[in-house]
Amino acid sequence: MAILYLSDPQRGAVFAKTFAQALPDLPFYQSVCPDPAAVTHLITWTVPDDLMLRFPNLRMIFSVGAGVDQFDFAALPEQVKVVRMMEPGLAEQMREYVTMAVLGLHRDLPRYLDQQRTGTWRGHHNVPAAERRVGVMGLGQLGKAALGALKSFGFELSGWSRSACQMDGVTCHTDIKAFQSALDIVVCLLPLTEQTTGILNAEFLAGLPRGAAIVQVGRGRHLDQDALLAALEKGHISGAWLDVTDPEPLPPEHPLWQHPKVVVTPHIACQTRPADAALHVVGAIKAERNGGPINGLVDRGQGY
Amino acid sequence: MAILYLSDPQRGAVFAKTFAQALPDLPFYQSVCPDPAAVTHLITWTVPDDLMLRFPNLRMIFSVGAGVDQFDFAALPEQVKVVRMMEPGLAEQMREYVTMAVLGLHRDLPRYLDQQRTGTWRGHHNVPAAERRVGVMGLGQLGKAALGALKSFGFELSGWSRSACQMDGVTCHTDIKAFQSALDIVVCLLPLTEQTTGILNAEFLAGLPRGAAIVQVGRGRHLDQDALLAALEKGHISGAWLDVTDPEPLPPEHPLWQHPKVVVTPHIACQTRPADAALHVVGAIKAERNGGPINGLVDRGQGY
Repeated sequence: MAILYLSDPQRGAVFAKTFAQALPDLPFYQSVCPDPAAVTHLITWTVPDDLMLRFPNLRMIFSVGAGVDQFDFAALPEQVKVVRMMEPGLAEQMREYVTMAVLGLHRDLPRYLDQQRTGTWRGHHNVPAAERRVGVMGLGQLGKAALGALKSFGFELSGWSRSACQMDGVTCHTDIKAFQSALDIVVCLLPLTEQTTGILNAEFLAGLPRGAAIVQVGRGRHLDQDALLAALEKGHISGAWLDVTDPEPLPPEHPLWQHPKVVVTPHIACQTRPADAALHVVGAIKAERNGGPINGLVDRGQGY
Repeated sequence: MAILYLSDPQRGAVFAKTFAQALPDLPFYQSVCPDPAAVTHLITWTVPDDLMLRFPNLRMIFSVGAGVDQFDFAALPEQVKVVRMMEPGLAEQMREYVTMAVLGLHRDLPRYLDQQRTGTWRGHHNVPAAERRVGVMGLGQLGKAALGALKSFGFELSGWSRSACQMDGVTCHTDIKAFQSALDIVVCLLPLTEQTTGILNAEFLAGLPRGAAIVQVGRGRHLDQDALLAALEKGHISGAWLDVTDPEPLPPEHPLWQHPKVVVTPHIACQTRPADAALHVVGAIKAERNGGPINGLVDRGQGY
C-alpha cells in the first residue's frame, strides 16, 4: 500500500508533510514510486491512458480540483473509487468570486469599465436587488455556498438541479424551462457530464428573458461561445462574466477577450489550497480504512 | 407653511405623489412657489447664495443625497435644521458597491482586467479572506452597513472613526496611526468636513502597509489624487477603486482613467430612490411637528 502524488511539486511538499504527520505508516511518494505495484492511492489532476497497467493495484484516485470531468470513467475498473476535492477553501473562494461577478453585473460594472476606456463619466440608474432575479445552476457544495452569500444582498434567488433540492429562501427547480424563464442573472456551477455539455447553447440563451446576463464558473464546454457572442450582438444577453472558456487558455485573438460586455478571468475562481487539500485526502483515506462515508466520493454513474 | 422641491423633476413627481397621500394638508411645490415667504421646507441638493432672502421663513433643508458637504453651514441661520438623506436603499447600495470593490481588489480583478486587454491568460495565487485586513474609515450608517456585508466573507475587519465606536467582530480605532498600520484594503466612507478634507494624502498613503489598496466612496476631496498616482507608481499602493473624484466629472484626459491598477466609476455607488426618499422626508416633517427625534438631522457643529 502506497500513495503516489502526481501534481504540482510545491504543493506536493505540503501534502508530504501532512501525510508524514497524519498517516506515518503509509509510504508517500512524489512523481515516481520505485514499486508501482505498491501504489494503491493516486493524487492527481489527470491520469495516463495505461493507468491500470502501470498501477495494477490502484484502489482510489483523488482529483486535486473540484471537478472530475477530466477522467474517463468508462476506462477505469469499477473497483477504483474516485474522490473529488472538497477542501473548505474551494467553497469560500467560489462564494467570493460569484458574489463579485453577480454584484458586478447587477451594478453594471462591464458598462462602466467600457466607459472608463474612453474617460466617459456617465451614471446609469441601478436596480434594487429585490427586483433582480439571480439563479444558480448546480446545487452542490459550491452552488449552495454561492447562493448563501447572495442571500444577504436581498436578491430574488432560484436554483436548478437535476434532482429535487430544498434550500431556505431559494426557489428550487428541476424543470429547466421554468427556471430559465424568470432570471436576470444566471450562474453556471454545474459539473461537466455528458448531459450538461453544451447546456448553455443558443436555445438556452434564447429562452432567458431579454437583457439577462451570465456568470460562467462551471466548465468551458458547458457554454456555446459562438451562441453567446451572437446573443450579445443581438442585445438579447446584456453581459457575461466568464472564468472558464473552451479552449483554455482562450487564444489571445478570441473575440470574447475584447468584447465590451464581457469580463474574462483565467480560471481563477477556485484554487485548491494544499494544506486543506491534503487534510481532505487524509480524511478520505482514514474513512476508507474504517469503512465510513467518504467525503467527495464520486457517483461514477452520475459523473459527479 | 409650504414645501418646495428643487431637484430632478422626474423624481419630484414621485415626491409630489407621496406628499399628496401622506401630508395632504401641506402645500407641495416643484421648482417654483408663488409665495416664497410661505416656504418653510426645502428639498434640494444645493442652495442659492441668497437663500434666506428668497425664503425668509425657511425652517428645514433636506439634502436629496447622503452627504451635506455641499452646504455652507456658516451662511445658514442657526434655526434652520439640515437633514441628510437616510433612505434604506442608500445603505443597501453602498453594501453592494463596497462588497464588489473589496472583493474585486481582494481577488486581483484590476490585474485580470489589464490582462484581458492583451488577451493574456495567466492565473495568480489568491489570498484567503482570513489573511486579508480590511478597514473602513467612517462608522456611520453606511460604514456599518459595508462592514456587515464584508463580515460574512471572513475578512479581518477594522474601523476608524473620530468618536469611539463598538461593533461586533470589528476592531474599532480612534487612533488613525494604529488603524492604518495593519490594513490591506482601506475603504473611505467618511463625511467631507474641514477635518477630513485631504485625509487620504501622501503621508496617509505612505503609512499604509506596502501593497495596500484603496476603495474611495467618500468624497473626491478626501483623496490627494496626485499622491495616489505617485504611490501606485512606486508600487507602495497596489490598486484603487474610485467612485468619487476631484473634480467630478473626472476630465477625460486624467491619468486615473487609463491607469492599469485603477477602476473608476462615475459616482454611482448610491443613488437616492425617490419613493423611499420621499417617505424619509415625510417622516422627518412629521417628527418635527410632533417634537420627536428627526432621523438624519445634521449636527451643524460637526458637519455631518
